[in-house]
Amino acid sequence: MAHPLFGPEIKMMLLDSNAVGLKAFVETLNPTTIAETLTEDAFTVEQVWQVLSQAGSRHAAHVFEYFSLDWQVKLATGAGRAQMARLIELMSPDDRVALLRRLPDLVSKELLRLVDEADRRDIATLFRYDENTVGSIMTTDYAWLPVNLTTGQAIERLRHQAPDRETIYYVYVLDEDTRRMLGILSLRALVLSVPDTPIRDVMISSDVVTLKASDDRERAAEAIVKYDLLAMPVLDDDGRLVGIVTHDDIVDVINQEATEDIQKQAAVGPIREDYLEAPLLKLWYSRGKWLALLFVMQMATINAMTHYEDQLKVILILAAFVPVCLSVGGNAGSQAAALVTRGLALGQVAVGDWVRLLRREMIVGVALGATVGLLGLARTWIFTSDAHLGEVSLERFSLVIALSVSVICLTGTLVGSLLPLAVAKVGGDPAIASVPFIATLSDVLGIVIYFNIAALLLL
Amino acid sequence: MAHPLFGPEIKMMLLDSNAVGLKAFVETLNPTTIAETLTEDAFTVEQVWQVLSQAGSRHAAHVFEYFSLDWQVKLATGAGRAQMARLIELMSPDDRVALLRRLPDLVSKELLRLVDEADRRDIATLFRYDENTVGSIMTTDYAWLPVNLTTGQAIERLRHQAPDRETIYYVYVLDEDTRRMLGILSLRALVLSVPDTPIRDVMISSDVVTLKASDDRERAAEAIVKYDLLAMPVLDDDGRLVGIVTHDDIVDVINQEATEDIQKQAAVGPIREDYLEAPLLKLWYSRGKWLALLFVMQMATINAMTHYEDQLKVILILAAFVPVCLSVGGNAGSQAAALVTRGLALGQVAVGDWVRLLRREMIVGVALGATVGLLGLARTWIFTSDAHLGEVSLERFSLVIALSVSVICLTGTLVGSLLPLAVAKVGGDPAIASVPFIATLSDVLGIVIYFNIAALLLL
Repeated sequence: MAHPLFGPEIKMMLLDSNAVGLKAFVETLNPTTIAETLTEDAFTVEQVWQVLSQAGSRHAAHVFEYFSLDWQVKLATGAGRAQMARLIELMSPDDRVALLRRLPDLVSKELLRLVDEADRRDIATLFRYDENTVGSIMTTDYAWLPVNLTTGQAIERLRHQAPDRETIYYVYVLDEDTRRMLGILSLRALVLSVPDTPIRDVMISSDVVTLKASDDRERAAEAIVKYDLLAMPVLDDDGRLVGIVTHDDIVDVINQEATEDIQKQAAVGPIREDYLEAPLLKLWYSRGKWLALLFVMQMATINAMTHYEDQLKVILILAAFVPVCLSVGGNAGSQAAALVTRGLALGQVAVGDWVRLLRREMIVGVALGATVGLLGLARTWIFTSDAHLGEVSLERFSLVIALSVSVICLTGTLVGSLLPLAVAKVGGDPAIASVPFIATLSDVLGIVIYFNIAALLLL
Repeated sequence: MAHPLFGPEIKMMLLDSNAVGLKAFVETLNPTTIAETLTEDAFTVEQVWQVLSQAGSRHAAHVFEYFSLDWQVKLATGAGRAQMARLIELMSPDDRVALLRRLPDLVSKELLRLVDEADRRDIATLFRYDENTVGSIMTTDYAWLPVNLTTGQAIERLRHQAPDRETIYYVYVLDEDTRRMLGILSLRALVLSVPDTPIRDVMISSDVVTLKASDDRERAAEAIVKYDLLAMPVLDDDGRLVGIVTHDDIVDVINQEATEDIQKQAAVGPIREDYLEAPLLKLWYSRGKWLALLFVMQMATINAMTHYEDQLKVILILAAFVPVCLSVGGNAGSQAAALVTRGLALGQVAVGDWVRLLRREMIVGVALGATVGLLGLARTWIFTSDAHLGEVSLERFSLVIALSVSVICLTGTLVGSLLPLAVAKVGGDPAIASVPFIATLSDVLGIVIYFNIAALLLL
């Protein structure tokens, strides 16, 4: 979506080769706004480079970071290598590694040759880490100070380093020789203290929460949220600072985790890419494997129903009510599973709460069963014609439906609420007990319940 | 869950009435760590107050803010009113309003009488805003400066105000008479500039993103994430600063939105409370209303199946394969719906993409249909005994199942992917096209497809 305000104006300036206007545009506006205007739908690769070339390289790098990763890849492959290499030197360490991971090998190798030595080493370090680790989201762009300064001297030093953007709000105090972290100094403490206080006295050095590069990135997200931090230091085994994770990267992690949970809930294998960018083969595989597994499991319903063939021969109308009776169990189970799984994910429910949870779901399940049971009774009583019933009495048949629906609803609720807990108990991911799995399990149970109640009351 | 390290130690100190030890505990550790130790499961209300009373009031207020809202309510109702009122004065404006909203009316009125005039007015202002608005998550605790200062003077002023915690990282520059916001000064810019620069020169005053208190809080979340901000100013209609929203409150919003999406996907009502805290009546209502609606919709399958009664009379075994054929459509639809709905929620898919999306889902749907169709063919061919088939040939029957499963799978996929888009198109919330609704719709279509293919090939 092109930015409604600036898009047409930029196009005019490009047509007129109005360099002054373009320069004013890129230099006054927020990088985010510029990135939002220069979208793939509205501009060509060449046009975007024409606009970016009017900005200072640092500003252009900031704009570039706000493009979607996909658009970045296209722009990077379409640009002059030297131009792109300069931009990579100025991009923030985490963003450029994300880009280089996505570029074709050949292109990224060519680019890396043109990047200066220090940056190349930095990129190689971050490149090492797996995608789910803290290392993959950390940046090496942080402000640090040696320990033997006063706060006044510290501010003076920072003014000279003029570190980029918001990573300055926490300054890391390091031992100059070993780079081991001695403490964290918040810019707030630095500013609010009297200028000749030793920073040793205002830095925080005990009870500091730190990460390792190999930690799961979820750990970083949890800790930053829990302690309301702006950033967290990442240390190696010897306590040396290797990078920091900042609060803005955490939001992406949180959103990706929620996406994964939502996908699992619908039995979709993890698809990390944006929906429209995911390759079709991947879409097929990540859905097909679960669909096939569920289909094979669901085949148990064929056996279950064949088992009751004789009953069906006598009272054929029973067949017509099978889908509606089964669906209640699946729906009630989905609801319970969604609530419990999310509760587990957010830490609101623990496995140890199962007794309390079972009691609650028993009560709610009975109430829900009664609700749909009454509806079932009404539907059957009012709309079922005697022509379909044969020798079966309407009263008894209505009772079979009402009872079946109620019991299946309760069963579905209990399966849906307890299965995620059981999976979590044995150490699995509770989201595996997804809606379709619960529906399948509850379908098989539902057939058994339904035909047994029918046998009891009708035969 | 009590903190494994400190819990037992605290209990010992409480037993020994070891005030010195308790004081050392509350004063050295991070408020979060203390709050994690003093949980409902491990400590009584009285014990917690005994520990908190050893801390300075300000520190106690910070610890208190990290307790769960539920535990806060219990502690607040169990505490001496004067003690609690003092804590409320020191809590951050957004947290205390959240607490007061949850307290019984009588208790909160009693408490408010004891709170000092300025705080009471501040609380009343924030109390006004609806739960989904920016007003409900904003805080009035921000640092501000008049415009006619130099950066050196500004730092001097801030040092005297010593504003609380991290809200200092952005300082708001106001017109002293009208309180209208003139610009935003980042602490970074303040520190990095030469001390006698006028703040007018380093503050940002154009292209500033602001909020209104009545805006949807999702808007705040989106903007903070998009622009990588630490906080955003909330202005009234006349441009006067009324509060700020900070980055840490945004994470809660993001998590709550994801929870709502997950609940909607399973057709659960919104339930805002933690699962174990939600009243049973609410659990029943928020699930029962959807379950009942779905049940009534699903009744269409009864009519559909009754319509094909004559076919069933001839080939009874068709009934046994109904659940498995229908479930494929529901599962395939759920998968597609989950992907498309989440894509829409994260802005990765737009309504305008429907042609592209349809093309993709057609291809994937056909591939998925072929996958499960082949499985269906194998199952029927290998395991169906002639005894059940009567006069129907195994070849033809297997073909009916394979074809039905494939077509139903494709249909489910298309319904699941297009329904959320259609709902979004007419301005609704795409998450309404939830998994159970899609399963219900696809069930009715499935019955029609199945029995028509059977009629075509078997009769």
